[in-house]
Amino acid sequence: MKFTFVTLFPNLIEPYFQDSILKRAVDSNFISYEFYNPRDFTNNKHLKVDKQMVGGGAGMLMTCQPLFDCLDKIKEENEDAYIIFPLAAAKTFKQNDAKRLAKKKNIVFVSGRYEGIDERVIEKYANEVFSIGEFVLTGGELPSLTMSDAISRNVDGVLGNAQSLDVESYENQLLEAPSFAKPEIFQNLSVVKEFLKGNHSKISDLKNQMSICKTKYYRPNKEKR
Amino acid sequence: MKFTFVTLFPNLIEPYFQDSILKRAVDSNFISYEFYNPRDFTNNKHLKVDKQMVGGGAGMLMTCQPLFDCLDKIKEENEDAYIIFPLAAAKTFKQNDAKRLAKKKNIVFVSGRYEGIDERVIEKYANEVFSIGEFVLTGGELPSLTMSDAISRNVDGVLGNAQSLDVESYENQLLEAPSFAKPEIFQNLSVVKEFLKGNHSKISDLKNQMSICKTKYYRPNKEKR
Repeated sequence: MKFTFVTLFPNLIEPYFQDSILKRAVDSNFISYEFYNPRDFTNNKHLKVDKQMVGGGAGMLMTCQPLFDCLDKIKEENEDAYIIFPLAAAKTFKQNDAKRLAKKKNIVFVSGRYEGIDERVIEKYANEVFSIGEFVLTGGELPSLTMSDAISRNVDGVLGNAQSLDVESYENQLLEAPSFAKPEIFQNLSVVKEFLKGNHSKISDLKNQMSICKTKYYRPNKEKR
Repeated sequence: MKFTFVTLFPNLIEPYFQDSILKRAVDSNFISYEFYNPRDFTNNKHLKVDKQMVGGGAGMLMTCQPLFDCLDKIKEENEDAYIIFPLAAAKTFKQNDAKRLAKKKNIVFVSGRYEGIDERVIEKYANEVFSIGEFVLTGGELPSLTMSDAISRNVDGVLGNAQSLDVESYENQLLEAPSFAKPEIFQNLSVVKEFLKGNHSKISDLKNQMSICKTKYYRPNKEKR
């Protein structure tokens, strides 16, 4: 899996691949990444990539020309390029998307800045558009990183222990039950007593009940979706 | 506003504050940040911070002792410390939370790694717990950064142009309408014609209609929540 990031700020993204789990995944060649900067493609003599909005509105938008030329180049170089725009106004990214997209060969994330991106760029180039949640961020870099991280975990080889994947929240539509590590008692605080008795089918039942409670509490609309 | 990050991997977080909008906000003293590493607080002679789960389960959990000592120290040093745990199994972070939390003086984000954090730590120290979405990540660092970014935008002074804030998606419960930048026609692709005619009340009506359509399409359950 190759991640291609189109961004004006590669320094916001690259360090995340240089430590911890994603670094290991890169070092082991399970994933790779590259950057394209729209500023390298602008025809503007002052190297600007943004222009005023048409039809009024505060702030500046990323304009067509640098992104058209940049994305044409990417498609020319990567025949498997699958282009995703993180946008506030888009469908919500979920765990199933992370699993599905982990099968792609090359995912391109196009990060907007300023007030966003000219809609014509999105209409022409987007294979998919995603929002990571109902909040506003300063740019598309963190959503791109967040989706890369969630997708990478599902790329074969990235997580050594495949079992870890299965019991996570969202994999079975229920939120995870509380977990406890040794020691059993710390500063007079004990783990759930049933966990100490070693009856695995009882523990498993209890965890399932706690998962159901947590899911009802934190995701009251879950069943309705 | 001071952000305090409790993390085993400060290098995954710090670069994000060293470029673009958050760097400007730090340079202008609107926000600041600091790190605490649980590894600096462990009593384990091999500097381990994780232990096996009690009651079975694959993988390791962050154990009580280093986090208890670390968070006690933080609370001693910052009387306004407001402690947030990004967790998969938690309520969903939304734009209203970003606005509300922007009034705090010091927010502490505790990033889990491995299979998560011993529940006793969360029960003792959490002021709030948040999930940023229904997907699984390799650690709490990206959710901590994402929340910091969303909160920072709402801290007074961080965005020069206060008007930019108001028209964003989620601020008025509707997703943003498509936007277009100059030039009006690029490679035979025109902006929406009505945007060219300069009748601002008509343009505003049209944008509102497009917002309603987009919201219905991408957030079909919106009204029900």
